[in-house]
Amino acid sequence: MMKVIPLGERLLIKPIKEEKKTEGGIVLPDSAKEKPMKAEVVAVGKIDDEEKFDIKVGDKVIYSKYAGTEIKIDDEDYIIIDVNDILAKIEE
Amino acid sequence: MMKVIPLGERLLIKPIKEEKKTEGGIVLPDSAKEKPMKAEVVAVGKIDDEEKFDIKVGDKVIYSKYAGTEIKIDDEDYIIIDVNDILAKIEE
Amino acid sequence: MMKVIPLGERLLIKPIKEEKKTEGGIVLPDSAKEKPMKAEVVAVGKIDDEEKFDIKVGDKVIYSKYAGTEIKIDDEDYIIIDVNDILAKIEE
Amino acid sequence: MMKVIPLGERLLIKPIKEEKKTEGGIVLPDSAKEKPMKAEVVAVGKIDDEEKFDIKVGDKVIYSKYAGTEIKIDDEDYIIIDVNDILAKIEE
Amino acid sequence: MMKVIPLGERLLIKPIKEEKKTEGGIVLPDSAKEKPMKAEVVAVGKIDDEEKFDIKVGDKVIYSKYAGTEIKIDDEDYIIIDVNDILAKIEE
Amino acid sequence: MMKVIPLGERLLIKPIKEEKKTEGGIVLPDSAKEKPMKAEVVAVGKIDDEEKFDIKVGDKVIYSKYAGTEIKIDDEDYIIIDVNDILAKIEE
Amino acid sequence: MMKVIPLGERLLIKPIKEEKKTEGGIVLPDSAKEKPMKAEVVAVGKIDDEEKFDIKVGDKVIYSKYAGTEIKIDDEDYIIIDVNDILAKIEE
Repeated sequence: MMKVIPLGERLLIKPIKEEKKTEGGIVLPDSAKEKPMKAEVVAVGKIDDEEKFDIKVGDKVIYSKYAGTEIKIDDEDYIIIDVNDILAKIEE
Repeated sequence: MMKVIPLGERLLIKPIKEEKKTEGGIVLPDSAKEKPMKAEVVAVGKIDDEEKFDIKVGDKVIYSKYAGTEIKIDDEDYIIIDVNDILAKIEE
Repeated sequence: MMKVIPLGERLLIKPIKEEKKTEGGIVLPDSAKEKPMKAEVVAVGKIDDEEKFDIKVGDKVIYSKYAGTEIKIDDEDYIIIDVNDILAKIEE
Repeated sequence: MMKVIPLGERLLIKPIKEEKKTEGGIVLPDSAKEKPMKAEVVAVGKIDDEEKFDIKVGDKVIYSKYAGTEIKIDDEDYIIIDVNDILAKIEE
Repeated sequence: MMKVIPLGERLLIKPIKEEKKTEGGIVLPDSAKEKPMKAEVVAVGKIDDEEKFDIKVGDKVIYSKYAGTEIKIDDEDYIIIDVNDILAKIEE
Repeated sequence: MMKVIPLGERLLIKPIKEEKKTEGGIVLPDSAKEKPMKAEVVAVGKIDDEEKFDIKVGDKVIYSKYAGTEIKIDDEDYIIIDVNDILAKIEE
Repeated sequence: MMKVIPLGERLLIKPIKEEKKTEGGIVLPDSAKEKPMKAEVVAVGKIDDEEKFDIKVGDKVIYSKYAGTEIKIDDEDYIIIDVNDILAKIEE
């Protein structure tokens, strides 16, 4: 399989298709101007301040929708995104 | 329940619906171009200068309305916002 | 009564309604593009350079009109404003 | 009389009405896009680099016309202006 | 043959013509607003932070399409590009 | 006579009227979007990096035409200009 | 002859008229939005980081076409350009 290693302070994330409204889950507004989205972290580049941006592979995150660059790996959608565009981590 | 942990110098806040005009309360102008809003702090990320931005969970704050990103947790509205867009704390 | 504590390098000020033209007083031009205004300082946040911006509660100041965010406390108008938008102190 | 104390790296200056064309004097072009103007320094704030910006009360200066904020003190026009918008000193 | 040595924090890269959809390969979306592209690194300038941007000649990379400057060497297309516009490395 | 002392990293320069095309002289293109111009240095402010910007009174320089502020001294045209807008020195 | 000494981090370069398509030579695309160009370095100002921008008089370089300021010396076209707008060196 192909491996994508983000350069600089970037991450490779895999968007999570939200099933509209889960029991106790986060539902992201469709109409928001700058729609935030959920994703799973697949790879992490070199983060300068790891305490401030404490993100590991496998973490679930919320990110700004229009940030980042979409790529396809094995027919799946991924995003390469700056760490600053990761807004929060989610724990369930 | 789901937990949202803000990354970087961000906060998770819960907007407080203002009951228009309270006895001795802050009433925020509807017509202001950049409407300030009241919220309660739910979670705090990693703030560099904690003396300058002395904000704890449970604090009531005034924030710039068009700042931040709205998300829904358990059908309630929350905002992920940069600490710099928190204008003031309120004590009642 | 409600207390508003400005965060960061901000101040809470209370605009002074100018009685057009006082004997020996400052009269601010109505037609100026960027109208300066008089206000009294109500609360001061954490100012980094206190020598350069030597402002205390009770000081009268001139500020840039379109700077800051208006809020209402007990039906009175106040402004939360960056210290950099305070142009000068007035002593009478 | 009222005293205006500029805050930060600002000055209070009093524009000098130029009598069009003096013998050996500076005449500033009316049609220039960014018209420079003559003024006398009335008060000086806290200048960081006093060697680079060596300006004292009483100095005559040339400043960028559209810089600064106009105020009226005792019916006279004054300007609060950043030190960086003072282009030069004049000695006659 | 002619040799092109990138100056500053730039690279010389040779775009790889993607055969639309490879078995297990990265397929880049044609319709994306800011299309990422695959390229092979031909020459590397002086990179300040070599740990953060660990790129060597021969590496396969993904880059932002509208970044960089196209040149032709021996009738082949190359791009001179800032290291910051290299989004990720690819290992197959 | 009047003396103009540039403040900060500025210079006072006197534009040289180019006689279109001199023998072995620099001819500046009339149609260039950002027309460079020749001038003689009349006064120098406080330059931080005197090695990088090695300019003395009497030097001939090329400057960006739309940079700087025009003033008139004794009916002659002068320009107050940032040292960064001086492109080169000329030696003949 | 006249000598032009670039100030700051600038260079004086002499554009090389490309004979469209040379054997093994660089051919620059005519239709590129930001056309890169070949030039020979005639004079070098004071470069801060000489390791990162290792350019000497006589070097052949590729530069961004719309960068820099055109001047004429002895009826020949030259360009005064920031070192950052020199993209690469060429060795043949």
